[in-house]
Amino acid sequence: MLHVTWDAATAEKDGYEHFMLKEIHEQPKAIRDTLAARLKEGVVDLSREISLTPEELKRFDKVHIVACGTAYHAGLIGKSVIESLVRIPVEVDIASEYRYRNPILTPSTLVIVISQSGETADTLAALREAKQAGARVLGITNVVGSSVAREADEVLMTWAGPEIAVASTKAYTSQLIAIYLLGLYLARVLGTQPEEQLLEVTEALPRLSEQVKSILEDHGSIRKFAEKIAQHENLFFIGRGLDYPVVLEGSLKLKEISYIHSEAYAAGELKHGTLALIEEGIPVIALATQQAVHDKMVSNIIEVKARGAHVLGLGLEGRTDLDRSVDEHITIPETLSLLTPVLSVIPLQLLAYYTSTARGINVDKPRNLAKSVTVE
Amino acid sequence: MLHVTWDAATAEKDGYEHFMLKEIHEQPKAIRDTLAARLKEGVVDLSREISLTPEELKRFDKVHIVACGTAYHAGLIGKSVIESLVRIPVEVDIASEYRYRNPILTPSTLVIVISQSGETADTLAALREAKQAGARVLGITNVVGSSVAREADEVLMTWAGPEIAVASTKAYTSQLIAIYLLGLYLARVLGTQPEEQLLEVTEALPRLSEQVKSILEDHGSIRKFAEKIAQHENLFFIGRGLDYPVVLEGSLKLKEISYIHSEAYAAGELKHGTLALIEEGIPVIALATQQAVHDKMVSNIIEVKARGAHVLGLGLEGRTDLDRSVDEHITIPETLSLLTPVLSVIPLQLLAYYTSTARGINVDKPRNLAKSVTVE
Repeated sequence: MLHVTWDAATAEKDGYEHFMLKEIHEQPKAIRDTLAARLKEGVVDLSREISLTPEELKRFDKVHIVACGTAYHAGLIGKSVIESLVRIPVEVDIASEYRYRNPILTPSTLVIVISQSGETADTLAALREAKQAGARVLGITNVVGSSVAREADEVLMTWAGPEIAVASTKAYTSQLIAIYLLGLYLARVLGTQPEEQLLEVTEALPRLSEQVKSILEDHGSIRKFAEKIAQHENLFFIGRGLDYPVVLEGSLKLKEISYIHSEAYAAGELKHGTLALIEEGIPVIALATQQAVHDKMVSNIIEVKARGAHVLGLGLEGRTDLDRSVDEHITIPETLSLLTPVLSVIPLQLLAYYTSTARGINVDKPRNLAKSVTVE
Repeated sequence: MLHVTWDAATAEKDGYEHFMLKEIHEQPKAIRDTLAARLKEGVVDLSREISLTPEELKRFDKVHIVACGTAYHAGLIGKSVIESLVRIPVEVDIASEYRYRNPILTPSTLVIVISQSGETADTLAALREAKQAGARVLGITNVVGSSVAREADEVLMTWAGPEIAVASTKAYTSQLIAIYLLGLYLARVLGTQPEEQLLEVTEALPRLSEQVKSILEDHGSIRKFAEKIAQHENLFFIGRGLDYPVVLEGSLKLKEISYIHSEAYAAGELKHGTLALIEEGIPVIALATQQAVHDKMVSNIIEVKARGAHVLGLGLEGRTDLDRSVDEHITIPETLSLLTPVLSVIPLQLLAYYTSTARGINVDKPRNLAKSVTVE
């Protein structure tokens, strides 16, 4: 059995105070490296990595994505990406639930497992369960030679390099890139979208690296907001559409390393219960990058503002109505709605990082948590 | 347009201090009434209500369940029930997400919408969207003549009677009963399960009413625990398998009427982040009614106990290993694993109620919330 382990002692912090901050800043490179060699002249080609023929790919009538923690959030975005580009129904599952619930698996099910380490116990068990049931398994992992890389029928590597901090950042954005590549590849091979539309997405992808860089360079207001929320013990994230899995991830990140009890909500669900918790001064972080639900999101923001919430709004550059309805406002560069998750998560990672340091917590090794959950 | 509205002033509290407590106690009757006339001599017959022929039912290759809030949690249980009895893939969606995400709908999709009032704005919009896309819509609602009852292609009524309290209780358990009936009916008509197995479930169903009653009679320890958690501002619920949607519902209930920031987690996900929030004295409510994952659940309990959590364990009568690993222990009567959600939610409803009264909150009308969310 081959074990590839990263030695924390040999990895350098490159002048950054923590591995997490270093890894956050390595994201432009991780995105570039994960795209490289797969994207050429506006066309995504994974045929050297994925052995499934177009005929075999055509046979899949559903996709299951199975993962834990942060990788599960990447899976939720994967559902939107694959359903919108390929129009095959996708179900996303927490691995520790999936493996025990007798999922409906057939040889025409493509099961995608996502694990940075490739050793996550529940994800690995789900992979084995799916293979045994006759499904084809595609693994997305960051570690060459890991169990997922060895046991999955197909492997799509993320090229994020070793990730040391417990809170995953660059592995996550690289997982998103791998998912976009997969969606675009399947859509092209199966002919499920007009070429112009695929080209639009394919051309926007390589710009993400520079756009992430520009967000990283301008983090003053995020840091200021982090110092404010460091005083609180409870807060909420809200979002709609593709912003919803991003706030789930932002909330998990904050929870892991700041110990603040944050919770992320699909904004439309607020009125069905959580609104009762919104009281004077409670911080709410609202993502509003999705054009199709922008107005709905603005009404949700007004709703929590009316109950006294202190709102940080995160939207696309150039939308001026958002800054009028929030207390503080951060923008991300314009990109396609489908691709915003790669950009919008960056300020949330920085927010978690600066909140953690403001609270004097050991960012890279938060209490009770391990980097890879290799036990069940 | 026909409007049927319930007049709170004419409904009596029957000696109960609040409508919520009255409605909690009406559950044995609501369950009986929802079962009545549909279950005869061990056979579920919905053919007088559902006009779909066996041939039409056979054509469905997937089910979407769409709802908000508490009804969404009933939908999550619906997924397990329908997938295990009928073996058709089921996707469950929050209505405010579903309607904007361009779901993959075909004429062979059965869309089930669940709404107590039948007027929930987002659910109604999802219903219309699904019909327009050519899907067949089945509505589960508690109000005769409501928009859902009028607009859905098929209607399965819950017979819970008028529900006045903002926090839904008897409507929710009646929704569960409707879902079991639907699952059993589909399984019988489509021949997806051996008759003995269907008979086992069908015979256990009518016992639930008496079992709920016995839980309601013995609520002393729940009330004591409620007085304890009333002092806290944060707590967690954990569960696996069918216990997971139940803890989601228990957590929502508590949140709505006690304003405590509670959050429910699939227990296997704890190690992927939330464990960082578990510190000395934090209350954790752990459901452990599912035989198949019982040992895994006990390890999760030991995990949070080791970090200082004060654990209330909820399990089936006769399992003695649970009381050894928790601080406080409540049991529910033995039933089939598939049916436990109807019983296990009862102590959680009582917990929310008594915590709310211990905190001096207006149980029936919590701040910021309305009974039916008829605006978006």
